[in-house]
Amino acid sequence: MKSVNIGLIGVGTVGSGLIQILNQNRELIQKRTGLDLTLKVVCDKDTSKLKDLGGVELTQDFHSVINRGDLHCIVELVGGTGIAFDIIRDALLSKKTVITANKALLSEKGTELFKIANENSVEIGYEAAVGGAIPLIRSVKTGLVANQFKSIYGILNGTTNFILSKMEEENLDYELVLKKAQELGFAEKDPTFDVEGIDAAHKISILGSIAFDCRIKLENVYVEGITKISKTEINFAKQLGYRIKLLGICKMTDGHIEARVNPAMLPLNHPLASIMNEMNAVYLETQFSGPTMLSGKGAGSLPTASAIISDIAFYSERAVSKDRENEKNIFQDAKMLDQTETLERYYIRFNTVDKPGVLAILANVLGKYQISISTLRQNEVVKEPVEVIIITHPAKEKDIRQALEEIDRLNVIKEQSVMVRIEGL
Amino acid sequence: MKSVNIGLIGVGTVGSGLIQILNQNRELIQKRTGLDLTLKVVCDKDTSKLKDLGGVELTQDFHSVINRGDLHCIVELVGGTGIAFDIIRDALLSKKTVITANKALLSEKGTELFKIANENSVEIGYEAAVGGAIPLIRSVKTGLVANQFKSIYGILNGTTNFILSKMEEENLDYELVLKKAQELGFAEKDPTFDVEGIDAAHKISILGSIAFDCRIKLENVYVEGITKISKTEINFAKQLGYRIKLLGICKMTDGHIEARVNPAMLPLNHPLASIMNEMNAVYLETQFSGPTMLSGKGAGSLPTASAIISDIAFYSERAVSKDRENEKNIFQDAKMLDQTETLERYYIRFNTVDKPGVLAILANVLGKYQISISTLRQNEVVKEPVEVIIITHPAKEKDIRQALEEIDRLNVIKEQSVMVRIEGL
Repeated sequence: MKSVNIGLIGVGTVGSGLIQILNQNRELIQKRTGLDLTLKVVCDKDTSKLKDLGGVELTQDFHSVINRGDLHCIVELVGGTGIAFDIIRDALLSKKTVITANKALLSEKGTELFKIANENSVEIGYEAAVGGAIPLIRSVKTGLVANQFKSIYGILNGTTNFILSKMEEENLDYELVLKKAQELGFAEKDPTFDVEGIDAAHKISILGSIAFDCRIKLENVYVEGITKISKTEINFAKQLGYRIKLLGICKMTDGHIEARVNPAMLPLNHPLASIMNEMNAVYLETQFSGPTMLSGKGAGSLPTASAIISDIAFYSERAVSKDRENEKNIFQDAKMLDQTETLERYYIRFNTVDKPGVLAILANVLGKYQISISTLRQNEVVKEPVEVIIITHPAKEKDIRQALEEIDRLNVIKEQSVMVRIEGL
Repeated sequence: MKSVNIGLIGVGTVGSGLIQILNQNRELIQKRTGLDLTLKVVCDKDTSKLKDLGGVELTQDFHSVINRGDLHCIVELVGGTGIAFDIIRDALLSKKTVITANKALLSEKGTELFKIANENSVEIGYEAAVGGAIPLIRSVKTGLVANQFKSIYGILNGTTNFILSKMEEENLDYELVLKKAQELGFAEKDPTFDVEGIDAAHKISILGSIAFDCRIKLENVYVEGITKISKTEINFAKQLGYRIKLLGICKMTDGHIEARVNPAMLPLNHPLASIMNEMNAVYLETQFSGPTMLSGKGAGSLPTASAIISDIAFYSERAVSKDRENEKNIFQDAKMLDQTETLERYYIRFNTVDKPGVLAILANVLGKYQISISTLRQNEVVKEPVEVIIITHPAKEKDIRQALEEIDRLNVIKEQSVMVRIEGL
């Protein structure tokens, strides 16, 4: 039996879950892996909230954790891109395996940290950073190692999936459901990070980088959140056989990467369309393995801690092998596609006056920008504005934007037009 | 760059896929893993069908592969439980890592082989044996290592899923669709192995053993195939909001295991219900990670070869570490539940005469056996037999069987009753 001595820095929701599982399943993990995972020291800025943890040292000073000579592995659960960077850097410099769930930090400063890890022949595990309990990072790195990826996209943020699910289920508008989600603890007091797609952008930049073996910088991810999605769009999507999800998307075309986060309409028979509430899922297509989907809990105390422990065991086993190469986490910068030039299909809702000839006017502008209509729907008019819904054939975003700008200036338009991308057709 | 020298024994569909991917993606895999996967020798009983593979030795004698001193890893793709056993045994005895997709062999004689592996400090990789390209074994072993499992069940056989999907899609009966599947190459000439559930039983015995850390012997898996499923059941399932899938199921209750393969009705909103055609998927619930689903291609040349390569890379990395313990693959025999005593819900179709009072007679017998009805449906009678459909509340299988036996002897019954288990409620 090999001992793995662990130092935990940051005891919030996930840290508490980690302590619980390590206590409860220590023997099970021993039996399965031959590793005795022993929590030696716990560090938090407020140690008073911690119960007595038996022989575990409590400290408020992360340096004292890193300076301990008996630790094999340091788990960073402080979060954010500030002090967490120092913690991971110093832990790597002291030649300890680091396990983290910190997607923001890895997305923004990962390259720097992985470089330090390589220089010190230690590794960083981050299974918990994307998709929570779903064995996603390991599957992409190991399970599908034989394949070039074609695309990887999915529901990477539980808060927004919960909100969109409830909007549909209860036919409520965004603001009301957000409030409810906040009460239930599914959304933060300041939900910006989630609802504006930033969290999903962090995750798709990490996931896309390992899938496509190139560095997708956060600033190169196009990001659009769900705050402009109304129940009107959710209902029209349903009528047309779609469901709106906030997707993190990464695709490669001719060696060029497209990376974005945006609300998208998925056909109802698409596997991702049935992933509801706070669940996460990733759908990917590769060269040889065919389409694959992995779904599960993307966040939460115990699911995330489950992923952390999987990393502790995995990287601790690797750490004792002197002959291994560090896992590949540093890549050349991706060649990015110009997002406005890619061909996508779009749902558009025009809000028009109720007069003859409006359709011809709209069709005329769309035609001018090479936008061809695949589906058109106008329900019986009850009151203005008349809602004219179209689904386009593949079109360029810059054409769509220009056409909408021109159309929205017309005097037959009563309210700003709404556009949602269509994915997975 | 470390060289991994590979010997391949058995060049059928999957072997050809393996040769193709190793050729095509050698550099990609080098870049990702730091391993140079080199095919050194290929063995098949008929080498004449093999194209010239450059510097790769061709042989018809598997002993000459095993006796080579320069190999690190032997891939067994002969299949079956005969000569394949000797190949793997001898390869392990010569201290080589073995990678195989042979579920029948591992299910039936795995314990013996894993014992030899342990004695020789080498490992057997079998990611490709269950779920093809889906990174399933690795996810259960590593990704979810921190969790006790509650249940693991799924669609483990592509042939039967294809047949059931087409039966629904084209409203055809089993025999016709089987013929079609055979023509399309989705079913073997002798389809027994697949349609009688034996293949799925091999897989669930392997998967269940690692999920629940106990050995689930093949003979302890209850097995029922799809040959008795008619389009009548498929249609009634649909009307009632269900879909029929052949499931491999393994659950633990109070330390006792239930393992079975049977057609089951899944609620349409269950994630497994949307897995169509030849796709496979596994749904699992654990202590901390929450429900997780993995889906993808469960068979086929390239998807299976993709999983084989993932194993070659993974176990080759481990092989060079002298300090590791062999992966746990040997378990104490599972304590099995008495399958007839477990509580399940059932769909039952009675085929009755068209006379008053029939329902009372049926209800009377069901009541006698403590079988309580949750849903009852009888469509308008066009001709005899009248189809009376019920869905029960949880009931014991032995009670269901006894009740059906008694009912089927009644003179109000025109044809044998049909029973399908309900899962995932």
